[in-house]
Amino acid sequence: MQGVEATAHVAAHELAAMRRALALAERGRGSTSPNPIVGCVVLDAAGRVVGEGFHLRAGGPHAEVVALAAAGPAARGGTLVVTLEPCRHVGRTGPCVAEIRRAGIRRVVYAVADPTAAGGGGAELAAAGLDVVGGVLAAEAAAANRAWLHRVATGRPFVTWKYAATLDGRVAAADGSSRWITSDEARRDVHLLRAQSDAIVIGTGTALADDPALTVRVDDAAPDLTQPLRVVVGRRDLPPGARLRDDTAPTVQLRKHDPAAVLARLADRGVLSVLLEGGPTLAAAFLRARLVDRIVAYVAPILLGSGPPLVADLGIATLAAGQRWRIDEVTRIGPDLRLTLAPVSADATAAAAPGATVTPAAVGVA
Amino acid sequence: MQGVEATAHVAAHELAAMRRALALAERGRGSTSPNPIVGCVVLDAAGRVVGEGFHLRAGGPHAEVVALAAAGPAARGGTLVVTLEPCRHVGRTGPCVAEIRRAGIRRVVYAVADPTAAGGGGAELAAAGLDVVGGVLAAEAAAANRAWLHRVATGRPFVTWKYAATLDGRVAAADGSSRWITSDEARRDVHLLRAQSDAIVIGTGTALADDPALTVRVDDAAPDLTQPLRVVVGRRDLPPGARLRDDTAPTVQLRKHDPAAVLARLADRGVLSVLLEGGPTLAAAFLRARLVDRIVAYVAPILLGSGPPLVADLGIATLAAGQRWRIDEVTRIGPDLRLTLAPVSADATAAAAPGATVTPAAVGVA
Repeated sequence: MQGVEATAHVAAHELAAMRRALALAERGRGSTSPNPIVGCVVLDAAGRVVGEGFHLRAGGPHAEVVALAAAGPAARGGTLVVTLEPCRHVGRTGPCVAEIRRAGIRRVVYAVADPTAAGGGGAELAAAGLDVVGGVLAAEAAAANRAWLHRVATGRPFVTWKYAATLDGRVAAADGSSRWITSDEARRDVHLLRAQSDAIVIGTGTALADDPALTVRVDDAAPDLTQPLRVVVGRRDLPPGARLRDDTAPTVQLRKHDPAAVLARLADRGVLSVLLEGGPTLAAAFLRARLVDRIVAYVAPILLGSGPPLVADLGIATLAAGQRWRIDEVTRIGPDLRLTLAPVSADATAAAAPGATVTPAAVGVA
Repeated sequence: MQGVEATAHVAAHELAAMRRALALAERGRGSTSPNPIVGCVVLDAAGRVVGEGFHLRAGGPHAEVVALAAAGPAARGGTLVVTLEPCRHVGRTGPCVAEIRRAGIRRVVYAVADPTAAGGGGAELAAAGLDVVGGVLAAEAAAANRAWLHRVATGRPFVTWKYAATLDGRVAAADGSSRWITSDEARRDVHLLRAQSDAIVIGTGTALADDPALTVRVDDAAPDLTQPLRVVVGRRDLPPGARLRDDTAPTVQLRKHDPAAVLARLADRGVLSVLLEGGPTLAAAFLRARLVDRIVAYVAPILLGSGPPLVADLGIATLAAGQRWRIDEVTRIGPDLRLTLAPVSADATAAAAPGATVTPAAVGVA
């Protein structure tokens, strides 16, 4: 509702600029963590686009600074349109509010309010006499930064559990064969999912059984694609020749099994989004702990009648205690089906860990 | 292709009459077995609709006879539009070719050719000087009579396996609880599926465990709804108070387990379409015998992690040997998903039983 109301107070060319800013923000996807993705468009006093920018990586300039630099003197008396409320804190780059005032901007239109403890600079800009409107296209902008917002709200990364199974819920046949349950098209889709994740998590069981590479391999990948962190959970050692030991992407082994502890360690490393690709046992551990925020299921129209099930025992004895999810999206991919699901009840996603402090440094807006 | 080509040779008002005939045919659905559903429209010499009819039940008049009677003398010099090629044999009702000639019809437009051993009367009518066009909207008409055509081609009923399972392929929880995995909406949909079936088949295991009624219960059911035959497969006796022993619908117990033998017995009783609602063991028996022609799967977005799987062992050891299906339809029903699947390979549906003779009496066009 905030977005709808706010949109009523912006001009059509400002709305168009916000759509452009959202598109610009996407150019940072995959490289900004632990920071959010942000895009910015500067309009001159006549409403013409005079500057564009996006945040590329933590430690680099914020989107506003890039766009204002591009605009130069043309920004004076103009409007700054940005997908996230400008910051007011001094982090690794200076506060954007100061840059905005220095440039002579008269009006600021932003999408999502800054939810961090440090807070955003909207009120400060308004107090300084600027015209400030927030909440414009906020739903789209929030969806684009879902993992970062989740991290700010809960203190832990956003966890997507991905699995590929047969119609009867098997992830392999009785003899262990699982290549390939799903089609080429579905497997390409998995690589896009990986490209949007900061870390890919599997257990030592999967690592030892499949010797996976866990890298992003997509045809149209940007040359500067940041490979996700490869994370192996468990105590068993990987053999010297394991693909996960190669140098195509960073790998870390966490010799612990508790999902909350695993996520805490990854959060410390700046990971906002986790793709859980482990087997039935690891998936069950995360599900039992209610630490799965989204399921992406690839279902192949195959019947096996035996083989390991997609998820191990969840300690659920009766139907009423089953974990209920909501189907958000259904997409046909080649001969297969992709389902995207969200937890149904509020308690299905863990609240922030007790005592977790969310500082700008921790959540990466600096 | 036949339908497309044929359609080029019919006038728009004849095509409209065929669509009307297809709609009329549906009014017989559920009551015509072992006969096909058939609808007919008679146009006078000026192309006006002067008679309509449909086949209601075996032993009753054919659609053509009903429509010609409604048209009376106005049929002379007119066109008869019918969803199935008119019959030329003398069964329980006289041959339609004779009735058509007697009425003075000049042109016959039909959809699907009569595939029975007796053959249709199209050639006979053409030899008698009538203008005959076949194959008009043949695909739609064939789909509407899929079970009957399947019976003619293979000698056995068309088998739809229906199941309701969780996302992880469980049909019940560890304690056996299964009411209700799917939503009210999905269960209502199952009753529509039952209403389109001649027989519902379960095993004694399901009969004893669930004591199901297996009747069609739909709000908008026609008052003269024919309840499907309830079929229990297996040797164990049902208790005296079992719902299947009540008089709401006919019930038969087949004390045999071989799916082919079960279907042969049902074919003898005039059953064209079977809805398989049994548990994992019965489903596995039909799947192993490649005697499932369609799967209708209701998938609830629930995770259980344990409980009986939707299908028992299929004797499949490795992924490459898995039974492959094709997803034909994906529909969201309330919170659940309904998938409709067809066998992929030609050998996935059994050919006609060796030596099966398909006579008009057996396939019910008489």
